[in-house]
Amino acid sequence: MKKVAVVMGSDSDLPVMKPCIKTLRGLGVPFVVRVMSAHRTPDAAAQFSKSAAENGFGVIISAAGKAAHLGGVLAAHTTLPIIGVPIKSSTLDGLDALLSTVQMPSGVPVASVAIDGAKNAALLAAEILALGDEGLSKKLLAEKEKMAREVEAKDAALDIEALLGE
Amino acid sequence: MKKVAVVMGSDSDLPVMKPCIKTLRGLGVPFVVRVMSAHRTPDAAAQFSKSAAENGFGVIISAAGKAAHLGGVLAAHTTLPIIGVPIKSSTLDGLDALLSTVQMPSGVPVASVAIDGAKNAALLAAEILALGDEGLSKKLLAEKEKMAREVEAKDAALDIEALLGE
Amino acid sequence: MKKVAVVMGSDSDLPVMKPCIKTLRGLGVPFVVRVMSAHRTPDAAAQFSKSAAENGFGVIISAAGKAAHLGGVLAAHTTLPIIGVPIKSSTLDGLDALLSTVQMPSGVPVASVAIDGAKNAALLAAEILALGDEGLSKKLLAEKEKMAREVEAKDAALDIEALLGE
Amino acid sequence: MKKVAVVMGSDSDLPVMKPCIKTLRGLGVPFVVRVMSAHRTPDAAAQFSKSAAENGFGVIISAAGKAAHLGGVLAAHTTLPIIGVPIKSSTLDGLDALLSTVQMPSGVPVASVAIDGAKNAALLAAEILALGDEGLSKKLLAEKEKMAREVEAKDAALDIEALLGE
Amino acid sequence: MKKVAVVMGSDSDLPVMKPCIKTLRGLGVPFVVRVMSAHRTPDAAAQFSKSAAENGFGVIISAAGKAAHLGGVLAAHTTLPIIGVPIKSSTLDGLDALLSTVQMPSGVPVASVAIDGAKNAALLAAEILALGDEGLSKKLLAEKEKMAREVEAKDAALDIEALLGE
Amino acid sequence: MKKVAVVMGSDSDLPVMKPCIKTLRGLGVPFVVRVMSAHRTPDAAAQFSKSAAENGFGVIISAAGKAAHLGGVLAAHTTLPIIGVPIKSSTLDGLDALLSTVQMPSGVPVASVAIDGAKNAALLAAEILALGDEGLSKKLLAEKEKMAREVEAKDAALDIEALLGE
Amino acid sequence: MKKVAVVMGSDSDLPVMKPCIKTLRGLGVPFVVRVMSAHRTPDAAAQFSKSAAENGFGVIISAAGKAAHLGGVLAAHTTLPIIGVPIKSSTLDGLDALLSTVQMPSGVPVASVAIDGAKNAALLAAEILALGDEGLSKKLLAEKEKMAREVEAKDAALDIEALLGE
Amino acid sequence: MKKVAVVMGSDSDLPVMKPCIKTLRGLGVPFVVRVMSAHRTPDAAAQFSKSAAENGFGVIISAAGKAAHLGGVLAAHTTLPIIGVPIKSSTLDGLDALLSTVQMPSGVPVASVAIDGAKNAALLAAEILALGDEGLSKKLLAEKEKMAREVEAKDAALDIEALLGE
Repeated sequence: MKKVAVVMGSDSDLPVMKPCIKTLRGLGVPFVVRVMSAHRTPDAAAQFSKSAAENGFGVIISAAGKAAHLGGVLAAHTTLPIIGVPIKSSTLDGLDALLSTVQMPSGVPVASVAIDGAKNAALLAAEILALGDEGLSKKLLAEKEKMAREVEAKDAALDIEALLGE
Repeated sequence: MKKVAVVMGSDSDLPVMKPCIKTLRGLGVPFVVRVMSAHRTPDAAAQFSKSAAENGFGVIISAAGKAAHLGGVLAAHTTLPIIGVPIKSSTLDGLDALLSTVQMPSGVPVASVAIDGAKNAALLAAEILALGDEGLSKKLLAEKEKMAREVEAKDAALDIEALLGE
Repeated sequence: MKKVAVVMGSDSDLPVMKPCIKTLRGLGVPFVVRVMSAHRTPDAAAQFSKSAAENGFGVIISAAGKAAHLGGVLAAHTTLPIIGVPIKSSTLDGLDALLSTVQMPSGVPVASVAIDGAKNAALLAAEILALGDEGLSKKLLAEKEKMAREVEAKDAALDIEALLGE
Repeated sequence: MKKVAVVMGSDSDLPVMKPCIKTLRGLGVPFVVRVMSAHRTPDAAAQFSKSAAENGFGVIISAAGKAAHLGGVLAAHTTLPIIGVPIKSSTLDGLDALLSTVQMPSGVPVASVAIDGAKNAALLAAEILALGDEGLSKKLLAEKEKMAREVEAKDAALDIEALLGE
Repeated sequence: MKKVAVVMGSDSDLPVMKPCIKTLRGLGVPFVVRVMSAHRTPDAAAQFSKSAAENGFGVIISAAGKAAHLGGVLAAHTTLPIIGVPIKSSTLDGLDALLSTVQMPSGVPVASVAIDGAKNAALLAAEILALGDEGLSKKLLAEKEKMAREVEAKDAALDIEALLGE
Repeated sequence: MKKVAVVMGSDSDLPVMKPCIKTLRGLGVPFVVRVMSAHRTPDAAAQFSKSAAENGFGVIISAAGKAAHLGGVLAAHTTLPIIGVPIKSSTLDGLDALLSTVQMPSGVPVASVAIDGAKNAALLAAEILALGDEGLSKKLLAEKEKMAREVEAKDAALDIEALLGE
Repeated sequence: MKKVAVVMGSDSDLPVMKPCIKTLRGLGVPFVVRVMSAHRTPDAAAQFSKSAAENGFGVIISAAGKAAHLGGVLAAHTTLPIIGVPIKSSTLDGLDALLSTVQMPSGVPVASVAIDGAKNAALLAAEILALGDEGLSKKLLAEKEKMAREVEAKDAALDIEALLGE
Repeated sequence: MKKVAVVMGSDSDLPVMKPCIKTLRGLGVPFVVRVMSAHRTPDAAAQFSKSAAENGFGVIISAAGKAAHLGGVLAAHTTLPIIGVPIKSSTLDGLDALLSTVQMPSGVPVASVAIDGAKNAALLAAEILALGDEGLSKKLLAEKEKMAREVEAKDAALDIEALLGE
């Protein structure tokens, strides 16, 4: 199976991205995690993206905050699908990162997930890779089933009297 | 090659989505275009999504405005990758559609492109399908090259004296 | 009297929705509380809504955060009035849930209350049911009177010298 | 059947509210239309609301723009359900009217529909009245069915080759 | 001298409004503080406003959060100047109260100060009353002078080496 | 009676401010209109403000767009009440001018009216001056009455059948 | 004197940037205009920036819309000052470009001017170069003087009677 | 070398501005720090700006929150480059300060950095001064190199197994 690259603009994004990494691991999707910055190590980011396809990557997940350019920089150098995770920082509640990630100009797409939507980035990457991997596709369906069962269990476990008695 | 479904919440979205359709056609990606509404024909939308994989679809592009739920409804019923195009309507300049599309809860991803980002939705779908199709991958690279050449041509053709003389 | 359904997208919404449940209980309005997700258990949500009228429900209150599609999904399957409570989550201060709830397309209304406006959702449901129930109507008027008395009591109890002396 | 009052803050809102009036007429819901302002004729608005129930009204639809207080003023004086339609004006794209309408304090609900969502206000009012009127309920279901058929007809009529040939 | 009325929609606004009250007291401006709600005690608010001029008030300061209608309700019933203080509540960071306060329709002005701008409301009220009161005018000028001296003192006291040494 | 100064940052604001000027004229309030810029003629603006009180002004109305600093600059140099009119310009729909006008720091108030709220600025100025002028106060009450009569006339003139027949 | 580079992401930005170019020409600042895209010709943009200093450039002005990454990409490769002009596009009124330009992460500054603030970008570039060029400094002072004279002339030419007579 | 002035509207901004001061010190750029307010000590601010060039300053950094006029006031009185740092305050998450800083009218530029972007303000000032100072230019390049090395070190130090094991 092709690999997923999880690229963060800063290692301070690691706690937010942990659910992404755990999800990839849980699904058995091969991945690497890298810290590369659109602005601080632009050549490394460009080089990584240019050679990503030949290095066996199928999808790149990019996580960055504020004027989040990392997804765009990676997308500029490859035709692999790029998934952008806007990271909330100390001001503007994530709106800056969201708009900087999703409002890409025509010709160079970045697939944006929700602000801090780390787990969904992993699931989207897996959905993409599962198009060519029957086993992964089944795992995703099982995961979807499990998620539904969990909601049903929570529904069944609701105890309104306890809530009102608090 | 797997097919792409382009699903619109309303046929009034068709003009905005034309660049998506033209791009898919230009790249030789097989596709169908459908009008289905998350709110007006929810069962049709759900049914379409549930059977999309077995009907040969690989990616679904969803276009909707205002409280744009269509992408989420489709994503609820499949593990195929869903690409959401938020459509600008008469109020709030597209912000409502953007947030309704991109801020999906954990577990059910939708890949959002820019507001009215129809062409990028097609390119993203093609990038996904190209992971399993060498020919399509080459077409995308050629398209990327062509786009760069066009920018270079525009750069070379700049005539500042003419601009200032206007 | 017809029942009210309080449907939450996640049981994490329960603390925010507690004032809704307490208010319904206090007014003697029969109700059930359910956890059902527009995206994780879409068929259950659709099925619930389709059969809500024949199951004795008169109003459905829907509470969800982020790209809050639950109200819309329920509204798609019934002509019962749907009340949407946008829930504030960790990013964007509730604006995403508000716009996803209130900006419904023409033909499928959702009645939105304020972000985290749980108590008002209950009162609105009671106001609707009170159109056919004289007793409930009187309780609502009494509640309104009581609320006014409380404001008057607070007004009378103001102690500015104590405030300034702090 | 109880009547619906459609109250506008200004007669300049009449064009936006026309779909509301047409929908009520089409469904056979009795209604009156009034111009009353929260700020210019506050006593008239208060008086109207106080006596609305005894005058045979079941629901009040309120339409106002900018700092849209009309819904709140009406809600302050009755326990009838109030539906607020935020009207887009020349600045801020309707966001001011939306927040002024929907962010009501605890105790006094206003049911907000989308910005300029005139038709949905009528449908919501009809849904509320239909709880006590089997005939109206059937009309709403028929309307919902018709809406679905229209979407299906648009879906069937899509002509992509014509679109691309333009 | 005419009095200032400080009207709050809820006594929970009292801590935010304390600087307003302290400033009025400090300037020797006569004032009363009241809790009255646009939505919970609308008749009391209307009545207060209608008789404010004849009761010796010259300015009314109104403080309210969320869909902050109180200023508008008071302005509807008097031609005294109304000063609105938008109060930040638990969602939307005060933007809802700001727009609900400031975006008043033509004909019925409310003078808005900053979100939580309690002290400035008092100063503005004093500036208005000082037009007819030489003594108050001198106090305001002295206050302005004092404020400037405080800034100059802070400027003189800056100790950058201490800051960098921390 | 003291005079009102209407100060605009640019003569391009004149059309928006026309209702302000007409209202002052209609009420018989003496006024002057000036173009002075916080950024282009800062010394003139400061000097005007410093000497405004002794030159017989009672209120200053300030109109400016974008980073609308004019109100703040005038307020810095006087203790006369300053009324700010945020002017909508070609981007951001007036939000920039609103926040730049209303979010003044503690100690230096500006009384903000709505975006492009020119008429209300005039009315607010007149309300302030009317505190010391019985005649002006009566004119304002008459104006308020007239406004109410106009709303009532519009209410009486509604012709729904004509509207629906269009 | 060092040169200014005016770099646009697309030649569609040329009309908006015309005042920038005219201002540079008017001040006698040497400049070149280029079309280079952060996403479509990323290597050209990076290469241009890397060699800008040795090619005699002193300041780079970058103009781009939507997810405006161009300023950031240029800033990543040089320590020359980068001035960013956020360009308003068809959605979100320029807010996306503003946040993508100005919210740069620590370590890599971009100096943002207003949305569509083309002339100010030129003036800022000239102010920077004028630190080492007495003649340019004098031209800027003269320009500032001229601007003040124009405001004074407009002030003197105001004809309120003509305005009211319209 | 010319000096940098760091001007704050309030000494409460000092903690946010500490990285600015440390960066200037670290680069060996001469600087002074001042507290001056656009609204509380406007004459001092104007006077400082008017004489800044002749007093040996080359760049002024201005930090202010809310309706952040300080940058504009300084820019009005000099043709030195002004760098504005919008400071986040207790409401609106810094959006007010950002718009008040960056949306300057044509003719009077302020170079805005990110909300709370203190370090970048220092770097931008240094980039400007480095145009005339080879030594400073080399320090900036070294700083840029060091920053890249730090990112690479963080990349090399990533320990995913440790993260997942937590």
